[in-house]
Amino acid sequence: MASEDVQLARKAVEFNRENLESVLKRRFFFAPAFELYGGVSGLYDYGPPGCAFQANIVDVWRKHFILEEDMLEVDCTMLTPYEVLKTSGHVDKFSDWMCQDPKSGEIFRADHLVEEVLEARLKGDKAARGISAAPEEEDADKKKRKKKVKQIKAEKLDDSVIQEYESVLAKIDGYSGEELGELMVKFNIGNPVTGETLEPPKAFNLMFETAIGPSGQLKGYLRPETAQGQFLNFNKLLEFNNGKTPFASASIGKSFRNEISPRSGLLRVREFLMAEIEHFVDPENKNHPRFDEVKNLKLKFLPKGVQEAGRTEPIESTVADAVASGMIDNQTLGYFIARIYQFLTKIGVDEEKLRFRQHMSNEMAHYATDCWDAELKTSYGWIECVGCADRSAYDLTVHANKTKTALVVREKLDVPRQVTQWEIELTKKLFGPKFRKDAPKVENYLLNLSQDELASKAEQLSSDGKIVFQVEGIEGDIELDSKFISIEHKTKTEHVREYVPNVIEPSFGIGRIIYAIFEHSFWSRPEDAARSVLSFPPLVAPTKVLLVPLSNNADLAEVVTEVSRVLRKEQIPFKVDDSGVSIGKRYARNDELGTPFGITIDFESIKDGSVTLRERDSTRQVRGSVTDIIRAIRDITYNGVTWEEGTKSLTPFVSQSE
Amino acid sequence: MASEDVQLARKAVEFNRENLESVLKRRFFFAPAFELYGGVSGLYDYGPPGCAFQANIVDVWRKHFILEEDMLEVDCTMLTPYEVLKTSGHVDKFSDWMCQDPKSGEIFRADHLVEEVLEARLKGDKAARGISAAPEEEDADKKKRKKKVKQIKAEKLDDSVIQEYESVLAKIDGYSGEELGELMVKFNIGNPVTGETLEPPKAFNLMFETAIGPSGQLKGYLRPETAQGQFLNFNKLLEFNNGKTPFASASIGKSFRNEISPRSGLLRVREFLMAEIEHFVDPENKNHPRFDEVKNLKLKFLPKGVQEAGRTEPIESTVADAVASGMIDNQTLGYFIARIYQFLTKIGVDEEKLRFRQHMSNEMAHYATDCWDAELKTSYGWIECVGCADRSAYDLTVHANKTKTALVVREKLDVPRQVTQWEIELTKKLFGPKFRKDAPKVENYLLNLSQDELASKAEQLSSDGKIVFQVEGIEGDIELDSKFISIEHKTKTEHVREYVPNVIEPSFGIGRIIYAIFEHSFWSRPEDAARSVLSFPPLVAPTKVLLVPLSNNADLAEVVTEVSRVLRKEQIPFKVDDSGVSIGKRYARNDELGTPFGITIDFESIKDGSVTLRERDSTRQVRGSVTDIIRAIRDITYNGVTWEEGTKSLTPFVSQSE
Repeated sequence: MASEDVQLARKAVEFNRENLESVLKRRFFFAPAFELYGGVSGLYDYGPPGCAFQANIVDVWRKHFILEEDMLEVDCTMLTPYEVLKTSGHVDKFSDWMCQDPKSGEIFRADHLVEEVLEARLKGDKAARGISAAPEEEDADKKKRKKKVKQIKAEKLDDSVIQEYESVLAKIDGYSGEELGELMVKFNIGNPVTGETLEPPKAFNLMFETAIGPSGQLKGYLRPETAQGQFLNFNKLLEFNNGKTPFASASIGKSFRNEISPRSGLLRVREFLMAEIEHFVDPENKNHPRFDEVKNLKLKFLPKGVQEAGRTEPIESTVADAVASGMIDNQTLGYFIARIYQFLTKIGVDEEKLRFRQHMSNEMAHYATDCWDAELKTSYGWIECVGCADRSAYDLTVHANKTKTALVVREKLDVPRQVTQWEIELTKKLFGPKFRKDAPKVENYLLNLSQDELASKAEQLSSDGKIVFQVEGIEGDIELDSKFISIEHKTKTEHVREYVPNVIEPSFGIGRIIYAIFEHSFWSRPEDAARSVLSFPPLVAPTKVLLVPLSNNADLAEVVTEVSRVLRKEQIPFKVDDSGVSIGKRYARNDELGTPFGITIDFESIKDGSVTLRERDSTRQVRGSVTDIIRAIRDITYNGVTWEEGTKSLTPFVSQSE
Repeated sequence: MASEDVQLARKAVEFNRENLESVLKRRFFFAPAFELYGGVSGLYDYGPPGCAFQANIVDVWRKHFILEEDMLEVDCTMLTPYEVLKTSGHVDKFSDWMCQDPKSGEIFRADHLVEEVLEARLKGDKAARGISAAPEEEDADKKKRKKKVKQIKAEKLDDSVIQEYESVLAKIDGYSGEELGELMVKFNIGNPVTGETLEPPKAFNLMFETAIGPSGQLKGYLRPETAQGQFLNFNKLLEFNNGKTPFASASIGKSFRNEISPRSGLLRVREFLMAEIEHFVDPENKNHPRFDEVKNLKLKFLPKGVQEAGRTEPIESTVADAVASGMIDNQTLGYFIARIYQFLTKIGVDEEKLRFRQHMSNEMAHYATDCWDAELKTSYGWIECVGCADRSAYDLTVHANKTKTALVVREKLDVPRQVTQWEIELTKKLFGPKFRKDAPKVENYLLNLSQDELASKAEQLSSDGKIVFQVEGIEGDIELDSKFISIEHKTKTEHVREYVPNVIEPSFGIGRIIYAIFEHSFWSRPEDAARSVLSFPPLVAPTKVLLVPLSNNADLAEVVTEVSRVLRKEQIPFKVDDSGVSIGKRYARNDELGTPFGITIDFESIKDGSVTLRERDSTRQVRGSVTDIIRAIRDITYNGVTWEEGTKSLTPFVSQSE
């Protein structure tokens, strides 16, 4: 088959998730963890092909980002003390709403439950009206959660009720716990099986908690992301980079999320591999030196305006235009979106199933400037697989404030500049006698006043001859006159500019990307739907080559040993299959593993040293010397050469065995 | 310098741990985690060079073991439910003894405390007698723990007391908690600072505990090793390997150990990277097919006999002799010991500071057949960095029993064999009426009797006409006659042999190995002790090449860009240093980072495209074209070529700049 034929063949048989899952489990790409003990939901183990696939993807990531962009990789601990995550906001805000059934003890995630029940009722309404359900497409991304509501009751609803349900569903991701509780009462939503009324929603923090050390007093969590370790090491990283910005740190490692009731396989798990970049940049200049290299890439964008208008057709635009029009906030963000696109398509994501969706205003954290998700289309709908956010100076600022440590860049100014600002001076020797043990608190309060506050206090001091204020932890008003303080507007010459850098954060969920690639790569041969193929790019395929001797003949075995030796020396991952089954069957088995190349060793090989090379997707074959064949494999796998180019000096070969 | 001169130079200045640590922290190889928040003991972050070094070592490990030996890599979850670790024995036995000070709340690890106090008293005795302390060598491995006892009091002890102390110290690793408590009372050991009497030792389990899911009812731990996930997936791995043994699985990942009071830097941490292999082998044939490839390697062994005789000089022996003499239990164990040696020396371990120490009988788990540790000598003493144990069938057996799932290999016999054994048959329809709800318990008891038990029961049945027994959970004696059961000696023909494979487990502590290599690689230039070098092998060095333009001239910058492009294309990790400082200083900075090669770009480079290549340890330089220089770097770094060989076609170059 020529390569267009392969494209056609890949689309000929409709995708079927059960077939894919059956192949993935049978070939041990992954399996539920602790299956022997009944399993634990949301935990999965990767078997040999899944593990090799993951390792190859991480390797490409490391080269594509860290090596290519000279990033500073760090490896920080997963165990994280309470205080760090209190400061970052995770202790207070990293939670979902859960409701318990007081009778059965069963626990539901409130937003998912409301969504499922209302959707089921809408479906029931449609059934009662004799209208078929909504087309698969729109509905698919909700499918993953549809386990609780098992039966759809055909029951007609009032038109006003339908409208109300639809309006709730459109806003489902934005409700507070209290609001969800009210909805459950209003719409009479209880345990979908028994109808039992549930307890009101409670916040459930999604971090796994533990105690560090023997006293049990140092509370800790498993990190929910790898970002915090990078922020905390900012000063060391800046110093390592000789004080220069912009620069990026990066980290690859496991993070944890104690999901309330995880389903949908590898897409929602409790322990997952992340790869995160924190790019530290001058807030006054977010241009990127290498922007020109990517600016002409044309990508599919779903900006917030389009979504807010209730539409889902993406806009195609070059990155240059997207930044120039202000759709993407700045060049650096645009640069990373483009680099994410390049990475994803390199490792096997189907670019037809990739879009960049901007966060709507109500989705985005208050401090974020702009945020885009790379979403990949799967049978579960469009799934967020990479986030790319401009987090402004938020993270460094909160940690700096909490620890009273400057996390700033100091840039020597070529031309010194004049800065005029309010400055406060304290006559400290008077503070001790007046305030005793409270003196540091009062001083601290005064020294941390903002410019605006200082201006107003200065005015008060000059008009009233004193200032009056309160300090947390001290009872009553405090009065100070100009014996204690002076506040003046002063002009200074600055030789150094000091600023808190902003952070652009591309954050990759490796497991989700892997699952999406499984779906994007999976197809069945039109001539025999039972023969499945995983068309991974050779670069990331778990095994690159299958060595297949025609029979168990000892002379053939010698050639196998010799070819194995060469492949091992070249560090090309390969497997030998010398089982007795037919060559066609052996290849079919390895098509399921995504092995891109096969080398067949036959009796000609003994005579003239030639072997046959088979390509997985097209099943085309060529013949040549071991050296030439391995060179072709190396070029196609690692050097980005096409099959046509890589095999043009080899002889086409027609076999009877497929 | 020639290479012997380098060897001499490396030994000229005495090793100083503080200097090393200062370089490692200053260059951000690693740093205490959460330092901004005051730090958490036993947790460290790796900065860019440490992280790259670690990634390179993991990469070599993966190629050396997984790829080279065709192992099946898996990636299993760290979160592990209680039941799994209860079965494995970790819930009951993975603990240290701790004592609390009832007044201060301070917690001490009991064995370390007894050891420290007795050693301090022995030192005080020597001081009082005017004898100098024991030589550094013997004492060094205890040094790491010497923090609690700050002052040594010069006080003479009775000779009998000295003898008693020494005998206790020799056995310190073997005491139970109760015994440690008795020693503390007997020798009046309390809080070494205040003298306060401590509470008796309590077992402290070293696993981090957490709750999985929202109910809080599924207790889990962070895994203490990566092994359990591999055992639990045994059946899937065996199937993946087409039912054939021997085969090995392997896993690289973080494990956790909640140390009571971790000290000694990277050697005793709470979160650490492990790489573990589980090699599954027929218990009746532990030969290894590739044993011949390593059998002539000569290694340093410290077998248990030598240690039990109180000696520490290792025996030099080939692996072949060690296995033939029975010192090493079997070929597979010997094979892996040799492969561990090859791996460690490849990544920079000094083979003079590497020995294989056998576990003594009282150290080894009861089920283990034989166990050897690769120990690396550091300034903290000899440190266990790799374990290599024959764990027999223990792990698979306990999980199989607990989950009632067979974890066995089924081997088709070429020649069927006759097996005679006792078989029991139950007349099940009589069990229900007689035992009611207890029937399954009774049946289960009977069906799980061993051959010996069946033999004795058969005898009882034939002599008494009945058997009498008790079953846990059922009150009173149970009597059954031959209406209920028959027990017969039967001969069957077996076509399949079924067995539980044994496990040989090489287990690597990557962080400890990394720290040992830091020490083994560190030296100072004799001409200037402030100039330190980390002589990592190029293969694992964090950065391979430093690009150094002679000045900031724009024409030189162009050459830098061009050379960078080539290095990036060749995927050789490099850095550019175009700072204004002298070339010598720039190289000195990178010697501390262990960068093996420097490329100097000067004004000749603009004219004829030639550049200078500098070797880190000898500071020798050669000159050639960019292509030739990069080929030399590639060959030396990745293809195991020596400097002499790799640069023989290049022109020696003498510079003034060092």
